[in-house]
Amino acid sequence: MKFVRYSAAGHATHGILDGDTVLEISGPPTGRYTETGATASLSSVQLLAPIVPGDVYAMAVNFHSHTGGAPTPTQPEPFLKPSSSVVGPGSMVVLPANAGKVDEEGEMVVVIGRRMRNVSADDALSYVLGYTIGHDISAREWQSGDRSWWRAKGSDTFSPIGPFIETDYDPHGKNIVVTVNGEEVQNCNTEEMIFNTQECLSFISKTNTLEPGDIVFTGTSGVTSRLRAGDSLVTSIDGLGELHNSIA
Amino acid sequence: MKFVRYSAAGHATHGILDGDTVLEISGPPTGRYTETGATASLSSVQLLAPIVPGDVYAMAVNFHSHTGGAPTPTQPEPFLKPSSSVVGPGSMVVLPANAGKVDEEGEMVVVIGRRMRNVSADDALSYVLGYTIGHDISAREWQSGDRSWWRAKGSDTFSPIGPFIETDYDPHGKNIVVTVNGEEVQNCNTEEMIFNTQECLSFISKTNTLEPGDIVFTGTSGVTSRLRAGDSLVTSIDGLGELHNSIA
Repeated sequence: MKFVRYSAAGHATHGILDGDTVLEISGPPTGRYTETGATASLSSVQLLAPIVPGDVYAMAVNFHSHTGGAPTPTQPEPFLKPSSSVVGPGSMVVLPANAGKVDEEGEMVVVIGRRMRNVSADDALSYVLGYTIGHDISAREWQSGDRSWWRAKGSDTFSPIGPFIETDYDPHGKNIVVTVNGEEVQNCNTEEMIFNTQECLSFISKTNTLEPGDIVFTGTSGVTSRLRAGDSLVTSIDGLGELHNSIA
Repeated sequence: MKFVRYSAAGHATHGILDGDTVLEISGPPTGRYTETGATASLSSVQLLAPIVPGDVYAMAVNFHSHTGGAPTPTQPEPFLKPSSSVVGPGSMVVLPANAGKVDEEGEMVVVIGRRMRNVSADDALSYVLGYTIGHDISAREWQSGDRSWWRAKGSDTFSPIGPFIETDYDPHGKNIVVTVNGEEVQNCNTEEMIFNTQECLSFISKTNTLEPGDIVFTGTSGVTSRLRAGDSLVTSIDGLGELHNSIA
């Protein structure tokens, strides 16, 4: 099942994507909901971030190709992004003044479905509502110069997610391809993760409870490239569609 | 005015503290609310964290006495804590297994009242709903060994706040005294901050929008001390009462 969130006539609501039709539901997919009976064509609505998240986690250095020659991490390395940085598909990513080099990172994103506390890796995926695509936008000078990544990875518009949450999905063996202005800049497979999705979720849950609607960016690969105003950023993942954002 | 949140007969609700009486209100103090007419004596209710926060910021190295001999920061140094780590007055702080040395930090905490984006320091305090006390519990080995402080400062129960939000308050020139088992372990005045409250809020708001209900821990002073199971941790701040937590 594919869950979306969208704006129609100025009203933000949740829905189920059925082909090119959106079936409105009464509330977020992390809770009890019913179909309201209202429908709309996909082309007539503006898609929003498919969930309004609580806490937002992301994984640092989770692909061998993204360690920059440093030793392979011996444990997952999560960090936090503020929920205020989340925007939706089609949204502008705004480069902050004085941020210097700002790069794209295209990633698979997990949406938590049930409260998750101290769960084993074997059981972790049963707590997941579904999967979507995310751009973990990264201001590299702030990332190296500040004590934490609160603005390097957390400035407004730095966490686009979408276009939909796929619930019937195996996160393993999926290709992730990132393009800027149509040119491929990142290409990897989720099998190349240092710690796979269930290992990351389990590790976080050992100390930090994950709540329904919390999201986890699972890491990026390779060498990222600098974004400039006017660029078009697209990440596609097998079975999760494409996430488009433009740079302002 | 003093806002509280509390549990009475298993029901969590917001209220206004009037002497020893709690006047129930219809919703959180960051929105429109009305008094419901229900009242309770303070001694008959269990106080909870006075706000359910969205994003949680905290300030690193914001007192000269807490820089550990390192150079004085030339800009505010915020970091993020997960909202899942927030608990209330009287709650247990649980030391995670294998965390090693876990210290207390007693701090003034700002509660945002209005959406705040790129606001000057001169105007920043007009966006504040009020002030409370917080314990920024810190697992020092994880703080130095992990790439980010997601669990060092974000494990479950690591962000107690309370007991109430004071709206009629000037954050300047206030004494902060922290005791463990009755013995004073930290003692400072908010005038000793490297960046004062309005400078911290303004700096965050330049890149990261602060929403109503978001909270900001404003930093700790001096040298902190190791907490052990059974300890009683109390921070008092002029005009904000006392925040009590026990260690498990």
